[in-house]
Amino acid sequence: MASTEPTKDAPEAPTVTKPPPPPFNLFKLDLFLRLALFATTLVSVILMVISKQTKYFSTPLTSFVVVLDAKFVYSPALIYFVAAISTACLYSIITGAVSAYGVFRPSPANKFLFHVATFDGLMLGVVASATGAVAAVAYIGLKGNKHVGWTKVCNIYTKFCSFVASSVAISLASTIILLLLLTISTYSLHRRTMHN
Amino acid sequence: MASTEPTKDAPEAPTVTKPPPPPFNLFKLDLFLRLALFATTLVSVILMVISKQTKYFSTPLTSFVVVLDAKFVYSPALIYFVAAISTACLYSIITGAVSAYGVFRPSPANKFLFHVATFDGLMLGVVASATGAVAAVAYIGLKGNKHVGWTKVCNIYTKFCSFVASSVAISLASTIILLLLLTISTYSLHRRTMHN
Repeated sequence: MASTEPTKDAPEAPTVTKPPPPPFNLFKLDLFLRLALFATTLVSVILMVISKQTKYFSTPLTSFVVVLDAKFVYSPALIYFVAAISTACLYSIITGAVSAYGVFRPSPANKFLFHVATFDGLMLGVVASATGAVAAVAYIGLKGNKHVGWTKVCNIYTKFCSFVASSVAISLASTIILLLLLTISTYSLHRRTMHN
Repeated sequence: MASTEPTKDAPEAPTVTKPPPPPFNLFKLDLFLRLALFATTLVSVILMVISKQTKYFSTPLTSFVVVLDAKFVYSPALIYFVAAISTACLYSIITGAVSAYGVFRPSPANKFLFHVATFDGLMLGVVASATGAVAAVAYIGLKGNKHVGWTKVCNIYTKFCSFVASSVAISLASTIILLLLLTISTYSLHRRTMHN
């Protein structure tokens, strides 16, 4: 052991330095969650768009048939929902591609993680507000509000309401996925401060 | 100048090492934003709670007077809003105190920044969903929805509606503040990965 020790006068022996460990990241989990975000937002938008239901009300005494339909374009909240969740779907495609790049070339800049975390936060706000808006309208549709005389409509438009409810439930899952994505971006940054 | 230079043979002069710079943080800005969050959430909740309006409708032929009032407890969306924004208000007090501690003793752990960013994200989702829910209900109150026969009520309960609208507008500001807080926590972590 002592023989290998370099003397003080001799030039220092070249030490074999280990390559630095790759910066900490969770890009595989990130990619999986972005794929899940894509799936949930896509299903959510499709359910909302195809939720149209047509009802035929025949009047008992005359031969008139009244046709009434329920579709998402009749409610501004539901239109906002479709716009917001479609944006989140597009966002999941773009950031999913970037995340896939991160898996195969695992040295993304810290700046990238910071930007992703910021945009994940923004998208979380948009998706959460859209989910809240549709949930509030759907609840009135389900239960009505006797104080202001808004009657419930889900006893008539059963199919429409079940589609909207499913859409809201799935977009709630999207919100949770976005929160997880935000957490893992921040966690990756946190871990890098320890190891850099 | 040359006389102060130490010779190569002499023992090396003790060099005065600079203390390491304090880790990057934006706690003053963070504290300011948390105070702003406290103010906006408090005003928002107060406006919603005091928004009660009572209307007296007299029937033209009889002497009956019908008393109808509008208050937030009549709508589940508005109750959720008060609960969510109150939680955000309490959250702003707790994290504001922690942030103030960070200003006066500027060496918080990175772990702390990570936890704060995660909880800011969670709170952002809660506040955004509550804002979306009340905005959707308020929009129906303002414009009605003729497709499902929900009549507008803001032409009757003018004061109630203006209070609710102000509350929603202020909680939208809370959402933006939470997004900024999330961004600066992530940015601080990002900057630390560069300097550590």
